[in-house]
Amino acid sequence: MPADAPPLNIGLIGYGFMGRAHSNAYVQAGNFFDLPRKPTLKAVCARNKDRAQAFADTWGYESVETDWRELLKRDDIDAVDIATPNNLHHEIAIAAAEAGKAILCEKPLAMDSAQGREMVDAVEKAGVANTVWYNYRRIPAVSLAKQLIDEGLLGRIFHYRANFLQDWTINEELPQGGEALWRLDAAAAGSGVTGDLLAHCIDTALWLNGGVSDVSAMTETFIKERVHQGTGEKQKVTIDDACAFLCHFENGSLGLFESTRYARGHKALYTLEINGEHMSLRWDLHDLTRLEVFDYRDESAIRGWKSVHVTDNGGEHPYMDHWWVPGLSVGYETSFVHQVADFVTSLDGGDFKGPTFADALDTQKVCDAVLKSAADRSWETVG
Amino acid sequence: MPADAPPLNIGLIGYGFMGRAHSNAYVQAGNFFDLPRKPTLKAVCARNKDRAQAFADTWGYESVETDWRELLKRDDIDAVDIATPNNLHHEIAIAAAEAGKAILCEKPLAMDSAQGREMVDAVEKAGVANTVWYNYRRIPAVSLAKQLIDEGLLGRIFHYRANFLQDWTINEELPQGGEALWRLDAAAAGSGVTGDLLAHCIDTALWLNGGVSDVSAMTETFIKERVHQGTGEKQKVTIDDACAFLCHFENGSLGLFESTRYARGHKALYTLEINGEHMSLRWDLHDLTRLEVFDYRDESAIRGWKSVHVTDNGGEHPYMDHWWVPGLSVGYETSFVHQVADFVTSLDGGDFKGPTFADALDTQKVCDAVLKSAADRSWETVG
Amino acid sequence: MPADAPPLNIGLIGYGFMGRAHSNAYVQAGNFFDLPRKPTLKAVCARNKDRAQAFADTWGYESVETDWRELLKRDDIDAVDIATPNNLHHEIAIAAAEAGKAILCEKPLAMDSAQGREMVDAVEKAGVANTVWYNYRRIPAVSLAKQLIDEGLLGRIFHYRANFLQDWTINEELPQGGEALWRLDAAAAGSGVTGDLLAHCIDTALWLNGGVSDVSAMTETFIKERVHQGTGEKQKVTIDDACAFLCHFENGSLGLFESTRYARGHKALYTLEINGEHMSLRWDLHDLTRLEVFDYRDESAIRGWKSVHVTDNGGEHPYMDHWWVPGLSVGYETSFVHQVADFVTSLDGGDFKGPTFADALDTQKVCDAVLKSAADRSWETVG
Amino acid sequence: MPADAPPLNIGLIGYGFMGRAHSNAYVQAGNFFDLPRKPTLKAVCARNKDRAQAFADTWGYESVETDWRELLKRDDIDAVDIATPNNLHHEIAIAAAEAGKAILCEKPLAMDSAQGREMVDAVEKAGVANTVWYNYRRIPAVSLAKQLIDEGLLGRIFHYRANFLQDWTINEELPQGGEALWRLDAAAAGSGVTGDLLAHCIDTALWLNGGVSDVSAMTETFIKERVHQGTGEKQKVTIDDACAFLCHFENGSLGLFESTRYARGHKALYTLEINGEHMSLRWDLHDLTRLEVFDYRDESAIRGWKSVHVTDNGGEHPYMDHWWVPGLSVGYETSFVHQVADFVTSLDGGDFKGPTFADALDTQKVCDAVLKSAADRSWETVG
Repeated sequence: MPADAPPLNIGLIGYGFMGRAHSNAYVQAGNFFDLPRKPTLKAVCARNKDRAQAFADTWGYESVETDWRELLKRDDIDAVDIATPNNLHHEIAIAAAEAGKAILCEKPLAMDSAQGREMVDAVEKAGVANTVWYNYRRIPAVSLAKQLIDEGLLGRIFHYRANFLQDWTINEELPQGGEALWRLDAAAAGSGVTGDLLAHCIDTALWLNGGVSDVSAMTETFIKERVHQGTGEKQKVTIDDACAFLCHFENGSLGLFESTRYARGHKALYTLEINGEHMSLRWDLHDLTRLEVFDYRDESAIRGWKSVHVTDNGGEHPYMDHWWVPGLSVGYETSFVHQVADFVTSLDGGDFKGPTFADALDTQKVCDAVLKSAADRSWETVG
Repeated sequence: MPADAPPLNIGLIGYGFMGRAHSNAYVQAGNFFDLPRKPTLKAVCARNKDRAQAFADTWGYESVETDWRELLKRDDIDAVDIATPNNLHHEIAIAAAEAGKAILCEKPLAMDSAQGREMVDAVEKAGVANTVWYNYRRIPAVSLAKQLIDEGLLGRIFHYRANFLQDWTINEELPQGGEALWRLDAAAAGSGVTGDLLAHCIDTALWLNGGVSDVSAMTETFIKERVHQGTGEKQKVTIDDACAFLCHFENGSLGLFESTRYARGHKALYTLEINGEHMSLRWDLHDLTRLEVFDYRDESAIRGWKSVHVTDNGGEHPYMDHWWVPGLSVGYETSFVHQVADFVTSLDGGDFKGPTFADALDTQKVCDAVLKSAADRSWETVG
Repeated sequence: MPADAPPLNIGLIGYGFMGRAHSNAYVQAGNFFDLPRKPTLKAVCARNKDRAQAFADTWGYESVETDWRELLKRDDIDAVDIATPNNLHHEIAIAAAEAGKAILCEKPLAMDSAQGREMVDAVEKAGVANTVWYNYRRIPAVSLAKQLIDEGLLGRIFHYRANFLQDWTINEELPQGGEALWRLDAAAAGSGVTGDLLAHCIDTALWLNGGVSDVSAMTETFIKERVHQGTGEKQKVTIDDACAFLCHFENGSLGLFESTRYARGHKALYTLEINGEHMSLRWDLHDLTRLEVFDYRDESAIRGWKSVHVTDNGGEHPYMDHWWVPGLSVGYETSFVHQVADFVTSLDGGDFKGPTFADALDTQKVCDAVLKSAADRSWETVG
Repeated sequence: MPADAPPLNIGLIGYGFMGRAHSNAYVQAGNFFDLPRKPTLKAVCARNKDRAQAFADTWGYESVETDWRELLKRDDIDAVDIATPNNLHHEIAIAAAEAGKAILCEKPLAMDSAQGREMVDAVEKAGVANTVWYNYRRIPAVSLAKQLIDEGLLGRIFHYRANFLQDWTINEELPQGGEALWRLDAAAAGSGVTGDLLAHCIDTALWLNGGVSDVSAMTETFIKERVHQGTGEKQKVTIDDACAFLCHFENGSLGLFESTRYARGHKALYTLEINGEHMSLRWDLHDLTRLEVFDYRDESAIRGWKSVHVTDNGGEHPYMDHWWVPGLSVGYETSFVHQVADFVTSLDGGDFKGPTFADALDTQKVCDAVLKSAADRSWETVG
């Protein structure tokens, strides 16, 4: 980075898992990418001042706020990062847009697409740069998949399938709600695996394979009641523990999606596969460095799935010329680093590849159709 | 096999891919298993006498018939093996039952469950031994999965998923119909991938995980017209090229099934996975010797998916004490050998684990519900 | 097979693991390959008449002998199959050659290369067809490797490595010697893993990569004493439990070989890898259907190891057009079937690709050099 | 990290691949670990001032030096990081010890063990904290292997094998020497793959499996001449392109090691495997998140190699409670972060697990014996 790159002052709201991932991204993006502006950890905001201060000390944030409205008022904040539970995205994002801040918002965009529509309108009206942290697009192997598809190597697409399998809620004694487990509380999260996990699968799918026309879904809540950490009482579980759906893509291909937190043996297994006329691609998060490629152009005697280790640094593999040498993997966290690098670069007048709020609204619409289809046991049109 | 084991005289109808697989099974079952009766290749039947004779010469069948009705009349035939296209199963099986023959019928049982119901009634009325060649149950790794499930090691089941992916019909120039390609002709096959491939997935699922309550399906025919080998003309393709469905099992678990002949890179990839509270299992046909097992009882630091090479011959692994030594795989064809061995053993008064015609009717009912659901775009109750 | 193919009458000596594997090969070769002569199970010979008779009953051998010299006298025996412990190969093979029989001898050829030299001289003098059961050459994936190498696709070869790892003798209570465990008795076996397992690795290596110039080896006997089943007494173990060696091939490439029966977790893991300038190949016995291929000609962004499922039946994959359809694996035992098919075909005047006794003598010479190098702690020249 | 943690001022010498990896480690260690002192990027030193300044700007180093002797004189430098070519380690390290600096030195420790001996003496005499960047010990999966071995779960060890395979020097047109390619120049590097790659394998082996007694090695230089970037002339290549060796460990187990830069298809494939009586372990750098574990205690029917995804954050998996959630991998660079975290923690009076200079000298002695054995074609005793 040039010594004279002006700062991009970040104000982060929230300090949980995602707060750490984003903070690391701002730091590493500046160290590994040549950016027009230097991401600077200006302020972190959280209701609990002591925790906010501890977080600031660890990461080197220069200041602390306890009210996000105060953060938005500060002139020395260029970009606001919304890393709160889902139910706060809408209000904060609209206020941030009105305050003229660039916005980096955690996914899913909103509680539903009505909220999302308003958020998109707000950022477009304000003309502020915006992105949603659908970070998996920027795992180098997934970016390579996009590149191969854009080059037309796959031909006509027949099938797309994805799932996101976890197993951490099988234990009946696990409570719901509260600061650590808000993802299990529909009031804070909006939905269960649909918004938390399938939303990732849908974002990547729309990016790689285009729009979805209609869906037929089912959801299930396996454990019906859990103690709520807020009330201390056993309460009905209102999120979806599992969700699966069939769909048609606008390009005529068939889609199959599944997510659950009850697949014993899978920690965070996001997998995707796309089958084209000439080439098929497959990826999974547990082995995130590898892209599996089947290339029908190969001679018939030695056709097979190729396991491409996406670590070459000669320009072949997206983002990897910024890291090490061939064979040396980077981790999950670099997907956020790459998103920061692309976003900051675009602030200098470049083209931003997304996902923007508008892109994330498209994902929200599919999620809404999925939940409605499951509730009504019917095929639902997306949109 | 004891030197004095009486023969079990086989009359085979059909000499295609399955005719060869079954013939090999009769030969190897006698050589590797200690059977109460010796499977004997008595007669092969096909309309084309020369081809039937050539087949008989290769395999050592003692005689040839060109009319299956004549075969059924012969007193020296104990068991009839129906290896014809699907549209002939119903008529031949009912006649064979009436002739008092034991019956080994290719899958799927029938063109639909109405036919299937009549076939079940016929064998039950006649009291003849019967089985349908859903051979994958007897891949040793799949039999081991059944054993682990029956021992209760998995606990409550949350998810079952299976798919059967092929890619051999992507080429638009491939014709439909005729002797070699009757599987692409709905008149001979009844359906496309649903009866040909999904039926296998469903049979194994019902065996491992119990009954299916309801389904929501979609089908697709990607190539709309192909030259028909019978007429020489380009005609509408009436089979389903791909089919996927969601379902609920009676035990409360969720199911997800998919089959296609348009998944570039997959030759015959039948995969299944079952997620239980305490254990999960995974298997695929391309690496058929391995059963993947995740055992939550393992110490947390070293929990992981185990790749069990199902080749131990000390009694641990089903059927394998009849073959070689640990580490040495057997092939696809042994699943038929094992079915013959179990079937013939049961003729001596033993218990037959199936699949019987009645079992195969249950699979047929699911297939029927799947096809109806896809046609009507609605959830359908099975049965 | 043509109905009028004349018989090739087999006389098998021995009825153990290999006796069964060979018998199955004679049966299946006739059923799956179009051969000029029909392998016929004429006689089995073993000292214990009851066991020989039981074996004959199971497999359909027409007669039984208890003295191999009597078997050799019979005019109705065309080919003799020597499936005895290693210490009997030399005497029987020379007598069989003198009797003018075609010979199929188990590996390793002999107790040492001096014996082997005499055996080669005997078959060459007698002009009888001969082969040694180094069966792994004819696993389809290994045959495909040979084909790719012969086509020159690999370019200059830099490295060859192979190992054969087992774990079945770790238990100290396991006895040595006797009928079942003669492989653990140097008097019957000649050596331990060197002759039993490394010999396989060496045969394939010489076939794929040419001659070996010199070797530096080490051997180890981990369990020093075991009860001998013959004497019932605890005796010194004289075989090598493990053996590893470095070598130079005549083509300038480096070799690395290892075998052991103390590699916990590996049942019979024969692996090989060859690294060429333009292409590398890798195979292992536990997943015998797959050949791993790295092809440097692929575009750099999607270079990776390809997992080729060697089951295509359109001529691409050796031997596979005789079996099933793409995606369906065959087992370990088919390597013997293919050897019978090639051997019998060559009797009709065709070219036999080996391994002949002469080929097996080359392997024996490497084994001898390895054992001498380990004893002397020095580099040894082969030959 | 506590807000009041005093700084640990780093002076880095060199700014290449390793300079970047180390710099990132200092930054991330402070952000992800709770350290007694805060690693602070105080000065970077390199002969070319402009490049040093550019590096300092990117990473935030506070100052720049062009003479390492000047750096050592500075009182505001607490620790010196030697990331230069190998031929400079000896002189700088001894001077740094004399200046009383803590030292973090790149591997291999020295050009040979005579140099290494002097370096160990220097740091011990000066009483300065010291470590060598054998970073692979702190890949979480490798640290987990160490933990399982230390718990005694493996029982008696029979075998250890490791290799480090690359393919980047196959091209004959690649020059040797100069700033970018000093690893191909024996004058700067000391040796080829032995010191660069095998040294890593040896360090891990000594750590996991104890001392090596004796070795038999071979080396090869496949491309005999390359243009030297210094002279512009074609010169003899004096490094080893490939090296393999057999060895005995002091615990009685057998070792097999290989390294090369001519294994087409392998980018940086460091693999290791250890076979114990009760458990075996396997790891490779291309899939660095996974530890393969075979546990003989498992029930016999479901024994198999377990693929442990070393990402659990509940205390099961070393270092991982500092990162994300189960299923989310970290990259190669975190091994350096973990080394910094452990080293800095030990400065506060804690125990440092190494590798120290003394540990690295043990590795150097094995390297020396390997190179001598290869030159003399004899077994060499280590030490």
